[in-house]
Amino acid sequence: MTESVLDYMTRLGRAAREASRVIGRASTAQKNRALQAAASALDSARAELVAANEQDLAAGRANGLDAAMLERLALTPARIDGMIVGLRQVASLPDPVGAIRDMSYRPSGIQVGKMRVPLGVVGIIYESRPNVTIDAASLCLKSGNATILRGGSEAIHSNRAIATCIQRGLAEAGLPAAVVQVVDTTDRAAVGALISMPEYVDIIVPRGGRGLIERVSRDAKVPVIKHLDGICHVFVDAGADLAKAQRIAFNAKTYRYGICGAMETLLVDQSVAASFLPPMAAQFREKGVELRGCPRTRDLIEAVPASEEDWNTEYLAAILSIRVVDGLDEAIEHINQHGSHHTDAIVTEQQGHARRFVAEVDSASVMVNAPTCFADGFEYGLGAEIGISTDKIHARGPVGLEGLTCEKYVVIGDGQLRGQEPV
Amino acid sequence: MTESVLDYMTRLGRAAREASRVIGRASTAQKNRALQAAASALDSARAELVAANEQDLAAGRANGLDAAMLERLALTPARIDGMIVGLRQVASLPDPVGAIRDMSYRPSGIQVGKMRVPLGVVGIIYESRPNVTIDAASLCLKSGNATILRGGSEAIHSNRAIATCIQRGLAEAGLPAAVVQVVDTTDRAAVGALISMPEYVDIIVPRGGRGLIERVSRDAKVPVIKHLDGICHVFVDAGADLAKAQRIAFNAKTYRYGICGAMETLLVDQSVAASFLPPMAAQFREKGVELRGCPRTRDLIEAVPASEEDWNTEYLAAILSIRVVDGLDEAIEHINQHGSHHTDAIVTEQQGHARRFVAEVDSASVMVNAPTCFADGFEYGLGAEIGISTDKIHARGPVGLEGLTCEKYVVIGDGQLRGQEPV
Repeated sequence: MTESVLDYMTRLGRAAREASRVIGRASTAQKNRALQAAASALDSARAELVAANEQDLAAGRANGLDAAMLERLALTPARIDGMIVGLRQVASLPDPVGAIRDMSYRPSGIQVGKMRVPLGVVGIIYESRPNVTIDAASLCLKSGNATILRGGSEAIHSNRAIATCIQRGLAEAGLPAAVVQVVDTTDRAAVGALISMPEYVDIIVPRGGRGLIERVSRDAKVPVIKHLDGICHVFVDAGADLAKAQRIAFNAKTYRYGICGAMETLLVDQSVAASFLPPMAAQFREKGVELRGCPRTRDLIEAVPASEEDWNTEYLAAILSIRVVDGLDEAIEHINQHGSHHTDAIVTEQQGHARRFVAEVDSASVMVNAPTCFADGFEYGLGAEIGISTDKIHARGPVGLEGLTCEKYVVIGDGQLRGQEPV
Repeated sequence: MTESVLDYMTRLGRAAREASRVIGRASTAQKNRALQAAASALDSARAELVAANEQDLAAGRANGLDAAMLERLALTPARIDGMIVGLRQVASLPDPVGAIRDMSYRPSGIQVGKMRVPLGVVGIIYESRPNVTIDAASLCLKSGNATILRGGSEAIHSNRAIATCIQRGLAEAGLPAAVVQVVDTTDRAAVGALISMPEYVDIIVPRGGRGLIERVSRDAKVPVIKHLDGICHVFVDAGADLAKAQRIAFNAKTYRYGICGAMETLLVDQSVAASFLPPMAAQFREKGVELRGCPRTRDLIEAVPASEEDWNTEYLAAILSIRVVDGLDEAIEHINQHGSHHTDAIVTEQQGHARRFVAEVDSASVMVNAPTCFADGFEYGLGAEIGISTDKIHARGPVGLEGLTCEKYVVIGDGQLRGQEPV
């Protein structure tokens, strides 16, 4: 490229802003046509996708990427199937754009309501997984946004091949190519430029490790939908059905250790601790989960002493901290103080306790008699998710189509004037 | 104060965070009791309020504040009435907190819905008007948030007196005093501290001039609800009812020149320009409004030549720029390019044009056959407004109770597990 990275990114930004006006007013049918055509294009391009991915994998191996990174990078036939299914699923979701709610007459005679509209241009910054390209592009397209995708440099050939399929879909639906743009340079300055163009980019979604998210949030001149820690709790209440509690806690921890909705701390009411903890601990021990407990826990089961730091740690591993609490109040207090406001659950048969837990736990997802590992866009019915927000404004929890939109006011009158008698 | 400003603000922040947990779970009745009791306290303290305000006015005169500033600072009996009415009005609004929507079963058997919850702690930074103290405190309280109010130093005695009344209301309802805290120092470092405590403050709302808002937005380490320019347009469409169009445009410009919803640019379809502009111009001229026009406008009426800069200017004064356009497309294009995405209106009798204008104009408020000066929380039925947002995420346009809340997910199960057959 003879063009500087900044000029290149500015060009993408300007094109995205222009394309956002077209996709913002595109019909639902037109958007769905693009998604379906992109799915067909992926299906026809399996050989090209695998070949491009092989280039990335070979380069990755040569550059000494570890096994986990190579695994994330791989476009297996199953993952290609997943992308195709994902596109068709997003096409089948209801279109949020244009929905008008709460339209009502005011004393002046005007009607006021709210209409759901796209945000405009969404910038996505992600790491190795190339299938994120499809998740992000499809959700942004369906919600009427233009998008600029900046994937990991290790996946650039795969992302280019995927982008070609998306372009085919856009062209078939008569939509401009700039609705979805994949940044075609591995220069890291591209990220700095992308997060500093409020005139062209309305929101940034970083998807990746904590380091990436913190860096982007710190330096961005554009709002960021952040996803930080998931320190999730399950609280086993007094009088809980202990068999159900054990199933829920076991699933919450072991469904997958590495997901943000995995339970990291188990809180147990003192009145049930003696009956609940020994069989629960045996099941975890058999699975190979290391247990760290408070003194009262260690009176009942064998466990490593938990330090203060344990209550504030997202292990993402086969480690669980356990604390015996004096009741609902102490459980809520612990969660609001030590948790990360991500996802927390109560196991209880007491309706009043469920009601208080739901109202008073300040987390993006609060659950009753369900494991925290359910915190996921697919499980919630959003289709794919663009991320899980731990912010407190705009969108909390799994972010799907609705989180990629906002609402504007619509006012309909017939010549009413302000400060004068209604006509 | 022997304590440093930073320590003082940290103390307020910590107290606000604690109080936010109490107000967040307070009942609607309890919150309304506090608002009604604060209204009664204001009514009983009229003499004290006027005396405190006299101190501020005297200091202001001594410090050479101009007449406009002194006018904004004054607590007249009518303004005290207004604060009392405002409190009672907010008490009568529906409580947004706790509302659950879209609760539905998922294939796994869990139920998923969204619950409206307070943001937590809201920091408000404002200038001279002491009545903002009541608007802001009442909206935050009703929406279940704790608030830290930083008013102008020139209004500190008035704000203290108002704060005393709010404290009486909180005490009568059994709510902690830290639910509403007025920063009791005129040290400017207090603002810097307030916008840099994400651990204690969830959102900042600056209310005041552009300088204040830009400074706060630039330096804040907490999300900011911004209110920047209001470059509002009225577009008179082909085939519009020209008498209605003239009434709407005149009201949009002259209801008040200084409000953000005032029309700054009038766009006129070329097919009606020759019949519409001459009588419209005569009415504006009689009112003393300076007209600046494009060449085609100046072929029809007398007007100063409009420069490119005029299309991008918020006059907030008796000046209006006028442009003749070739039709709806050019009007939408002009508004999206030169406007500030605040409030824009079309005057039309063509349903298809109204529909397109509403969908395609990218502004916080879009209006059909109504003047832009209706852009206001009271007119929209929000009760008071905490501000008018020109941001594209979280909340756009007038921000009332709903904009001071967010939604969390609520998941209700009965022992369902992820990755296993539904029970």
